[in-house]
Amino acid sequence: MSDLTPAAAPNDGTPVDEPPMEAVVDLLGMLAYGELVAFDRMAADARLAPDLRRRAVLSEMAAREITNYRRLAGRLAELGADPEAAMAPYVRAVSDYHEQTEPNDWLEGLTKAYVGDAIADDFTREVALVLASPDRDLILDVLHDSEHADFAADELRAAIAIDPKVANRLSMWARRLVGEAISQSLRVAGERPSLAALLAGRGTDFQALLKRLTTAHTARMGAVGLNN
Amino acid sequence: MSDLTPAAAPNDGTPVDEPPMEAVVDLLGMLAYGELVAFDRMAADARLAPDLRRRAVLSEMAAREITNYRRLAGRLAELGADPEAAMAPYVRAVSDYHEQTEPNDWLEGLTKAYVGDAIADDFTREVALVLASPDRDLILDVLHDSEHADFAADELRAAIAIDPKVANRLSMWARRLVGEAISQSLRVAGERPSLAALLAGRGTDFQALLKRLTTAHTARMGAVGLNN
Repeated sequence: MSDLTPAAAPNDGTPVDEPPMEAVVDLLGMLAYGELVAFDRMAADARLAPDLRRRAVLSEMAAREITNYRRLAGRLAELGADPEAAMAPYVRAVSDYHEQTEPNDWLEGLTKAYVGDAIADDFTREVALVLASPDRDLILDVLHDSEHADFAADELRAAIAIDPKVANRLSMWARRLVGEAISQSLRVAGERPSLAALLAGRGTDFQALLKRLTTAHTARMGAVGLNN
Repeated sequence: MSDLTPAAAPNDGTPVDEPPMEAVVDLLGMLAYGELVAFDRMAADARLAPDLRRRAVLSEMAAREITNYRRLAGRLAELGADPEAAMAPYVRAVSDYHEQTEPNDWLEGLTKAYVGDAIADDFTREVALVLASPDRDLILDVLHDSEHADFAADELRAAIAIDPKVANRLSMWARRLVGEAISQSLRVAGERPSLAALLAGRGTDFQALLKRLTTAHTARMGAVGLNN
């Protein structure tokens, strides 16, 4: 599909339109593992916080990812899938991404959360629209609320206001994050053809999808004073 | 006091029996920081888990500590105290404790949680009894539920059943944990006399308190096949 109208993604539950179970389990497994890792990374980044107030804010946000994990794992179990088995195929790509993009300080950690979570959310939102309910609703529901992004954006803007040179360093860092994310995404797409087929089978225009993701990313970078 | 009867700790709100505000803020600050750190350490220990299922269980338990943190910080704010300022005096002792007792593997992490959380809970329960409501109720409410202890105990017993030599190594490790905890507790008691005064002022029999803590600890060690 080349637009986001829900009509392109039926949710009336007619069997002919239901995406294949294997692809749904693949997708939920990927998202569940993403939440588990997001929790872990955010908890670790909280340790980089310059004070206890900021550390508490990030810790609370991390905890919310676990609530989402629980819901996704619950849905997998409901579908008769083993959450652990459904997550396993994504462990290597996600671990590699994070090993390649270990933040060196509080601002790099925030940039990573600000840039990475938003791209992941945008992509997830697009994929959710090709699913039927209740999976579509569940997935739209576990997307990050804007609180984390707003917090990160405020911190980044404040840091850049104090020292404009920070913007260059963080812009380069963000480009590295995006590059690494793309490279790991392509690897997953190659290894899990059911996910790519899920999108392709629904008539997804990949070029238009990529353009939407890129446009939104560029706008977000500009909003905090970073350049793409 | 030499027993745990609630009569020794009035909760009828009469001013003459209310513990001094400074001591209550000190205590809530200590507990709040303890929760923030417990979250952090448990989240880090989850990374040592041998599989995704265990990692998820520990991550979910970590997230619960943050809910408790939120409640304690909320109460501090209600009392007109700044949560950050109330937590600050405990940062060094708690950090030093954890730096001195960094687990090397999954079982050491579980032993630390099993041994350390329980002693902290026992101590906290005793202190709560000298407070008035609502602080007393709040503190009793944020104590760890037994789920984490049960999970850790099951894992430890299973590991010792497979390889009995593990028991010696973990027993020594537990002794080191207790020694380091005592040394940091004495430091805090010396630096925060209001806490010690809170207990002393209520007629706490320190020797009896220490005996109760030790007896419970020894029983817990034995329950999973460790020796004290």
